[in-house]
Amino acid sequence: MAGPAAAFDVEAFLDAERGRVNAALADLSPALAHGAPPALREAMLYALATPGKRLRPVLCAAAYRVLRPGPAPDAVYRLACAVEIVHTYSLVHDDLPCMDDDALRRGRPTVHREFSPGAALLAGAALIPAAVRVLDEAARELGLDAAARGELIAELCRAGGARGMVGGQWLDLRAEQPDARVDAEGLERIHRLKTGALLAASLRIGARAAGGDDARTEALTAYGRELGLAFQIVDDVLDVTRTAAELGKTPGKDLDAGKATYPSLFGLARAREMAVERTDGALDALHAAGIDAPELEALAAYLLERRR
Amino acid sequence: MAGPAAAFDVEAFLDAERGRVNAALADLSPALAHGAPPALREAMLYALATPGKRLRPVLCAAAYRVLRPGPAPDAVYRLACAVEIVHTYSLVHDDLPCMDDDALRRGRPTVHREFSPGAALLAGAALIPAAVRVLDEAARELGLDAAARGELIAELCRAGGARGMVGGQWLDLRAEQPDARVDAEGLERIHRLKTGALLAASLRIGARAAGGDDARTEALTAYGRELGLAFQIVDDVLDVTRTAAELGKTPGKDLDAGKATYPSLFGLARAREMAVERTDGALDALHAAGIDAPELEALAAYLLERRR
Repeated sequence: MAGPAAAFDVEAFLDAERGRVNAALADLSPALAHGAPPALREAMLYALATPGKRLRPVLCAAAYRVLRPGPAPDAVYRLACAVEIVHTYSLVHDDLPCMDDDALRRGRPTVHREFSPGAALLAGAALIPAAVRVLDEAARELGLDAAARGELIAELCRAGGARGMVGGQWLDLRAEQPDARVDAEGLERIHRLKTGALLAASLRIGARAAGGDDARTEALTAYGRELGLAFQIVDDVLDVTRTAAELGKTPGKDLDAGKATYPSLFGLARAREMAVERTDGALDALHAAGIDAPELEALAAYLLERRR
Repeated sequence: MAGPAAAFDVEAFLDAERGRVNAALADLSPALAHGAPPALREAMLYALATPGKRLRPVLCAAAYRVLRPGPAPDAVYRLACAVEIVHTYSLVHDDLPCMDDDALRRGRPTVHREFSPGAALLAGAALIPAAVRVLDEAARELGLDAAARGELIAELCRAGGARGMVGGQWLDLRAEQPDARVDAEGLERIHRLKTGALLAASLRIGARAAGGDDARTEALTAYGRELGLAFQIVDDVLDVTRTAAELGKTPGKDLDAGKATYPSLFGLARAREMAVERTDGALDALHAAGIDAPELEALAAYLLERRR
């Protein structure tokens, strides 16, 4: 297939963008945990240094760049890190014994295994106000006035709260109970909240920081929401189709746990179709608003085709 | 002793102020958890409805009223609730099995006992962004501009983060380890962070919201810091001197756990003196700045003399 998406080197793009995100995180980290007791600080920095896709900050910075073409200042990546910090805290808490009780995260011991459950609880909680401060400071560096900065903070707090990500974590936890009956609607709600809310907020924050108008901000948000669902469906599909070596984690874990997933509810073939439909939905949202963003198109295709 | 403090009916003051705080919390609660999954919402509201001293919001509103005499609008109490919400989340997390593992809080089952550890973890975490939003909205109702609101959010995030309250929770957790050696300096640091930071921020936020100048805001902050230490010393003293019935919790729990406390480090008599010294320090801070605040003076005396 010809066209701009095919011509776009998405792996090089992702490498470069992740590099800038990781540099920004490394840059921010000392100040983030400054003044904290050393061991708590260590646990916070360990969590932030867990290798990851950095998908949310990459999307945040991409939204900014789509609306403000040209070289993006470093502060855009610091802004984007605020979202990654919230995502990181959610992983730390999700891994805790009272949640998923995971021993490994991306091949490294989880925070509670490396330190202690108490340290993981507190390091996670401490990352939340830290993210708010990072967001505010980066937005200030980008020249946003106090009102615009307040809007961004409200976006992050909404997406990262009870009606967003934390609500989704809760629904996900309940869905793992032996007596849980999760139907298609329930499964979509879990992912809309747990993954979609913060992913959409990443794009929204990037768009707002770039001074995006309502129509384009809304379109980028919708792209994020649909991408979040596609991402989750692909995750579920990979969980049943890939070997441990390819995936970097134990495959089939969800099935073993009797948990509702897209393949378990719809079958593998239909789940794959649904991932394609959601990806199309994400691209449609951009096209309808006249947004020409080869990187976002290529990224959506890349996430759909990924093997881990 | 004659004088304004003696003439001030502190119990009536506290009852009235707690009444306004509780009314504001009840008022805010539906919106706080709006859109959250019902059971998560229930856990959040259960935590917020735990009967408590409401000391932090009472101090926040008092600081506002000291600098802006006259009837305080309801929004002042909603502003004050933001601090109480942060305090509430810290109690929910502190009670968790991986922290203090407490079954009761003020005579009611703790959140993780009433719901589940996962629910308590998530309800607690969800309260953090909720507090930020409550603070911002109440400050807006009070007519504060976006810059001033941003300052208040920064105060709350600093006090409730790794170099404030969460840092103190971490130090406190470490101090409970069998191999912990906590000296006087270490004990004071725990309490300065765990209790003092948010208590001082309560006054600071109230003072800033009232448009207080730097000198008086700083004096009220210092009052809060000293009061926090006095409060904690009195807590430690009560823990060894009162019976369970008077205290509403198991006395001597800290001693049984071999934990460093003011009485265990300094003896009971010296600990009592230290509480008086800290209380004097709190009042001195007010006097030095020329702040005439009978309610804050009476409150400090009342907290020193309390029996539970």
